[in-house]
Amino acid sequence: MASTYRNFRTSVPWLILFLEAVFMVLFYFFFSEVHTSSSAIQYPAFQDVSHMVVFGFGFFLTFLKRYGFSSTGFNLLIIVLGVQCSMLVEHLLWASLFEDGLTRITRAVVSMTAVVISTGAVLGRANPLQLILMTVVEIIFFHISRWIHRSYLKVQEYDSLMDVHLFGAYFGLAVSSRFSEPSPRAEKNSSTPKLDLFSMLGTLFLWMFWPSFNSVLTHHFRQPAIYNTYFALAVSAVTAFVLSVLTTKDGKFRMTDIRSAVLAGGVTVGCATNSIKYPWIAMILGLLASVIAILGSYCLQRCLNPALKIHDASGVHFTFGLPAVLGGLAHLLLSGI
Amino acid sequence: MASTYRNFRTSVPWLILFLEAVFMVLFYFFFSEVHTSSSAIQYPAFQDVSHMVVFGFGFFLTFLKRYGFSSTGFNLLIIVLGVQCSMLVEHLLWASLFEDGLTRITRAVVSMTAVVISTGAVLGRANPLQLILMTVVEIIFFHISRWIHRSYLKVQEYDSLMDVHLFGAYFGLAVSSRFSEPSPRAEKNSSTPKLDLFSMLGTLFLWMFWPSFNSVLTHHFRQPAIYNTYFALAVSAVTAFVLSVLTTKDGKFRMTDIRSAVLAGGVTVGCATNSIKYPWIAMILGLLASVIAILGSYCLQRCLNPALKIHDASGVHFTFGLPAVLGGLAHLLLSGI
Amino acid sequence: MASTYRNFRTSVPWLILFLEAVFMVLFYFFFSEVHTSSSAIQYPAFQDVSHMVVFGFGFFLTFLKRYGFSSTGFNLLIIVLGVQCSMLVEHLLWASLFEDGLTRITRAVVSMTAVVISTGAVLGRANPLQLILMTVVEIIFFHISRWIHRSYLKVQEYDSLMDVHLFGAYFGLAVSSRFSEPSPRAEKNSSTPKLDLFSMLGTLFLWMFWPSFNSVLTHHFRQPAIYNTYFALAVSAVTAFVLSVLTTKDGKFRMTDIRSAVLAGGVTVGCATNSIKYPWIAMILGLLASVIAILGSYCLQRCLNPALKIHDASGVHFTFGLPAVLGGLAHLLLSGI
Repeated sequence: MASTYRNFRTSVPWLILFLEAVFMVLFYFFFSEVHTSSSAIQYPAFQDVSHMVVFGFGFFLTFLKRYGFSSTGFNLLIIVLGVQCSMLVEHLLWASLFEDGLTRITRAVVSMTAVVISTGAVLGRANPLQLILMTVVEIIFFHISRWIHRSYLKVQEYDSLMDVHLFGAYFGLAVSSRFSEPSPRAEKNSSTPKLDLFSMLGTLFLWMFWPSFNSVLTHHFRQPAIYNTYFALAVSAVTAFVLSVLTTKDGKFRMTDIRSAVLAGGVTVGCATNSIKYPWIAMILGLLASVIAILGSYCLQRCLNPALKIHDASGVHFTFGLPAVLGGLAHLLLSGI
Repeated sequence: MASTYRNFRTSVPWLILFLEAVFMVLFYFFFSEVHTSSSAIQYPAFQDVSHMVVFGFGFFLTFLKRYGFSSTGFNLLIIVLGVQCSMLVEHLLWASLFEDGLTRITRAVVSMTAVVISTGAVLGRANPLQLILMTVVEIIFFHISRWIHRSYLKVQEYDSLMDVHLFGAYFGLAVSSRFSEPSPRAEKNSSTPKLDLFSMLGTLFLWMFWPSFNSVLTHHFRQPAIYNTYFALAVSAVTAFVLSVLTTKDGKFRMTDIRSAVLAGGVTVGCATNSIKYPWIAMILGLLASVIAILGSYCLQRCLNPALKIHDASGVHFTFGLPAVLGGLAHLLLSGI
Repeated sequence: MASTYRNFRTSVPWLILFLEAVFMVLFYFFFSEVHTSSSAIQYPAFQDVSHMVVFGFGFFLTFLKRYGFSSTGFNLLIIVLGVQCSMLVEHLLWASLFEDGLTRITRAVVSMTAVVISTGAVLGRANPLQLILMTVVEIIFFHISRWIHRSYLKVQEYDSLMDVHLFGAYFGLAVSSRFSEPSPRAEKNSSTPKLDLFSMLGTLFLWMFWPSFNSVLTHHFRQPAIYNTYFALAVSAVTAFVLSVLTTKDGKFRMTDIRSAVLAGGVTVGCATNSIKYPWIAMILGLLASVIAILGSYCLQRCLNPALKIHDASGVHFTFGLPAVLGGLAHLLLSGI
């Protein structure tokens, strides 16, 4: 076992180096034109999304003991590999698309959110080799699924990118079910107060940059997307605190509940941005999303996961999966009316 | 006592839920119009202020042991409740005001700074129920005081919003004097080096976003406000380090002094932004503000507070109150000349 | 020894106070004109650079045990003193230059990066007095060197400001060689996992804001600078992880390697921004920079440093010095072709 593991580890750097060499050669062939036009994406908007993915998700996942550094460091490695991979795959599938560099990177960073969410499901059990292979495979599948959406189902660009949460969560769960259950004595999964504070830092980062994320790729008027996301997140946060107290016996706030439910409203509204007209609709969606996330966390962890032998390390199913399903339903309902 | 406390806790979620339901119904009636005009507030400017309030103040107040999570988590809960409340109260008082959504949220977030500052005074003694009630009551009083300023005293909008520091600090002290003294053995008030680093993180965040805060609502040319605030903060930081060494016996920098004095210049300049013409005036105000904050911290904590039985947990009186008084005086003096 | 140290400490506040008084008087004479024109620098761009210097470098250097607070607090003190000093020195050397306030501060903050890098070399051995004197002396030398570049070597403004890394690293090493070797038992230099996480936080901040830093002062089209820096940083990060595994025996990622190599690509591209045409050139430079940084860290720490009696506390030579040399060579090569 130990020697197999060592073999794994020694093969990781060569795999990464091989991937990077391939990327560099493909960049030489595909991205050598010079654009001088101004970008449709503002640089601060790109910066916000990049912040959210690198920093927010990096620290959001630090709550597992002994994974602090793995989480933030690995997150960065996966993102930079994935962004390059995503730009190339997208270029190969839509070669006719004429876009400037900043729009391309922004779109790639948004796509990478799916991979980062999937990583949350397998954190602590997948080794570096598996994580990197998962990144490449997932980003290819993600773009193929978008290409099918776009070509056959005639889904608009913007709606299609919003299913990053849905794709990320369920791809992560599917991969997670392939891994063995971690040994119950594993102290790796326990949490410490200090790391909780770092995790809170990550959660607050995600919470604050979510309006940027939901509005960055919209070609319409950006302001309602920002406005609605803010209110959905606000109501989600309130509901998360309320439900956290009601579902615990000692009446204290539970960090884990809050972490998972506080973002639910943003996920839901992100899947239905263009169909929400008024802030009160966003607020109701935020409330429902948060309820689903917390109830989901209780039902899934106690009933469904043991039955299906899924071990969802950071709860991506109820944090990102279920709210995204709700958002999709809301979108169908609201745009149908 | 224990049972009373449990009753308190069980009533908290229902109170929050009731408030949130009221907010949602009122949002349905008041904020259902659709704005398509562009906002006067830039999104990055709003983002900066939101960052400062949620993140900066959240971590600024983490220095008390065992309050790390309470501080950041509760801060978020209070802010999201207060922002909704503030938008509604402001709408009810100035129903004729026609503004877009982003301007409304920005103004509400700036108003919430008053509540966050007040929270600092009672941190560690007020229970969640009291904090939430304080938030709602304070935001109503704050808007009524602004309405009186505007209607009777003919104070301009911008000047009036700048007294958030003044209102926040003295409201917090008034509430604080109603609470009992914490037991002297309370180890809750002691600080640990790790949390000090988190607190430093919060302080640096506040320090860096202060120019955004002071310039976000100005309708004039924004640049001098940024410029002057930066220099006032710079001189404040320098003075804070100097005075911290001079007032301690062992000649070391004291974290607490620096935390309270480093921001004093920003508070002072914030109350007098429109009347400061040259950077050197801002620098002198920054120097004076920092001196007042540190001397205030010594005098108040030793003489005034025990006499008046005020326990000011995070020193909002000398951090925000006294510099704001100085800023008000400077404004009168400079605009009179 | 103890009494000398106490004398040192008591003289620090008076030195700072004297400096600040001089600055304020000079500001009164030099910066009293009122500008009403709009700035060439966008406020968010300035904010990014300020963030990077105050926050990113502050936490980047927290990895040494017991220096957490010194590092972040002192960093702030040095920056605010240095920014004022830099504005004055620049004004004295180019008195004819007519610029608005925000451009002046931005340029001063970028210049201060040199001093912050130098600080990294002497961290833990220089006392506050020495650090402050070093700041003032270095900023004067830096502007004189820029003035010589500009006046005699006809180097463009933008290229000249990019040698902050080069100047900072080698000035720091020169100063560092003047100090005595720290005692080997000094537990101050050891690192703890918690502080590593703070340091990672700082590194990620620097990583994310580097594109802003490289593009903030360019008067040309800013977008290619952002685009190229991003890819150079991405390839650097990948290479850093690969080399970190290959150079350690147990096949684990070493925090220290990653911290020093992940930024190398940004430094290199920063010195050659205007001559890089295609992203693949930036990617190759990122790869080379990262290789140089990690190999440099092994060779220098084992061979050169003991021989030259240099103790480079946070490895500024291979983190900033060598990649900047590579960037300079690349600039000559690419602009020559």
